[in-house]
Amino acid sequence: MSALLSPDQLEAAIRQVGAERYHDKHPFHALLHGGRLNKGQVQAWALNRYCYQAGVPRKDAALMSRVTDRELRREWVHRILDHDGASGEEGGIERWLVLTDAIGLQRDYVISMEGALPATRFAVEAYVNFVRERPLLEAVASSLTELFAPSIHKQRIAGMLENYDFIGERAMQYFRRRLDQANRDADFALDYVKRNALTPETQGAAVAAVRFKCNVLWAQLDALHHAYVSPGLIPPGAFRP
Amino acid sequence: MSALLSPDQLEAAIRQVGAERYHDKHPFHALLHGGRLNKGQVQAWALNRYCYQAGVPRKDAALMSRVTDRELRREWVHRILDHDGASGEEGGIERWLVLTDAIGLQRDYVISMEGALPATRFAVEAYVNFVRERPLLEAVASSLTELFAPSIHKQRIAGMLENYDFIGERAMQYFRRRLDQANRDADFALDYVKRNALTPETQGAAVAAVRFKCNVLWAQLDALHHAYVSPGLIPPGAFRP
Repeated sequence: MSALLSPDQLEAAIRQVGAERYHDKHPFHALLHGGRLNKGQVQAWALNRYCYQAGVPRKDAALMSRVTDRELRREWVHRILDHDGASGEEGGIERWLVLTDAIGLQRDYVISMEGALPATRFAVEAYVNFVRERPLLEAVASSLTELFAPSIHKQRIAGMLENYDFIGERAMQYFRRRLDQANRDADFALDYVKRNALTPETQGAAVAAVRFKCNVLWAQLDALHHAYVSPGLIPPGAFRP
Repeated sequence: MSALLSPDQLEAAIRQVGAERYHDKHPFHALLHGGRLNKGQVQAWALNRYCYQAGVPRKDAALMSRVTDRELRREWVHRILDHDGASGEEGGIERWLVLTDAIGLQRDYVISMEGALPATRFAVEAYVNFVRERPLLEAVASSLTELFAPSIHKQRIAGMLENYDFIGERAMQYFRRRLDQANRDADFALDYVKRNALTPETQGAAVAAVRFKCNVLWAQLDALHHAYVSPGLIPPGAFRP
């Protein structure tokens, strides 16, 4: 990362991080989408992933709290509204709870996060803190895993509907909705990064931010895999199917 | 502040802070509303106050970044939308710029904040940092100067329209709109503080937060008064009418 990249080369470098490190490569996802998990394991995934969903609007607010450009805040606030829901609308977090309801988890228990793996919560807080503390360009760049999300969401919708009799269309609404939202958000953020990362140092930092975010996602699946698949060592206090 | 207060006593203690310290008591406001400033002094006020307006959405985002209760975030995000403007709508900051346009300030110069007094910017950043760092209850409580805002806005609209021939109805739209918004927001925040400050310590901290916020507002007027009224000592680099 020592030479100055063109905007298109920077985009390619970012996409390369996804090709190498995005969590669609994690074995847990192959199990999840391929119907090779039992209901308890799917429950563990959904209740842990809730922590991430619930953290995202705090992450986006932390980013906005640092933005002096009103137009950038006006763009970014959509993310908060998408997740929390605008007045009178169901948001992404609510749609996630529809999924956890559908697979038989108590809503209060999910929201309490009591059964979530500590490693999940640590990863989510690491993300919130990264966005709060790192330069704004890196904070924006860390959202760019959304570039890679639509394909995993499509695989997930098809795989889970086909393979699990306890999953129906309504439970998949979160992912269907994210297909459009993630595309729009990722396009905006990618354009922002390409326009603002204009030195080798900031370009390298932007790519590193995407790598960091891939680690945040990957670490959550590692923790799930260790606790609920192999060796199946559930930490004290965590959800036991 | 050592005895436990009832919710109504807490409200009374908060309102007492306003009665003693809200910036409607500052001599600069008497001059402003009474038509005793010249156009350059009104310009200085408007361009300095812009810094505060522009900081408020960052303050509100900083607060939201700490809120794990989705319903509270859904309520609080209105403040950001009110100031920045929802899609296709003029927000409070835009309405403030209509005012600065109307009194003959260059918009780019206002937005750059280059001519603002350093003390103004320090006070605004102190507010953003307070909300970012102090307990959430105190962060919410610091917004409660809005309880006292409608009466100053009414005085300001009437006084400025009557006393300055360079101020028209359009320039006052910011204040007209805030009459409703501030009431709604203040009612919500007051209710939150009354429901959540349930120990002598947290009640004392909530009252202190309102006092802090009054200081943030007062310090801005002190700086204006010193620079542009008496002794009229404008710091290097600041706006010179």
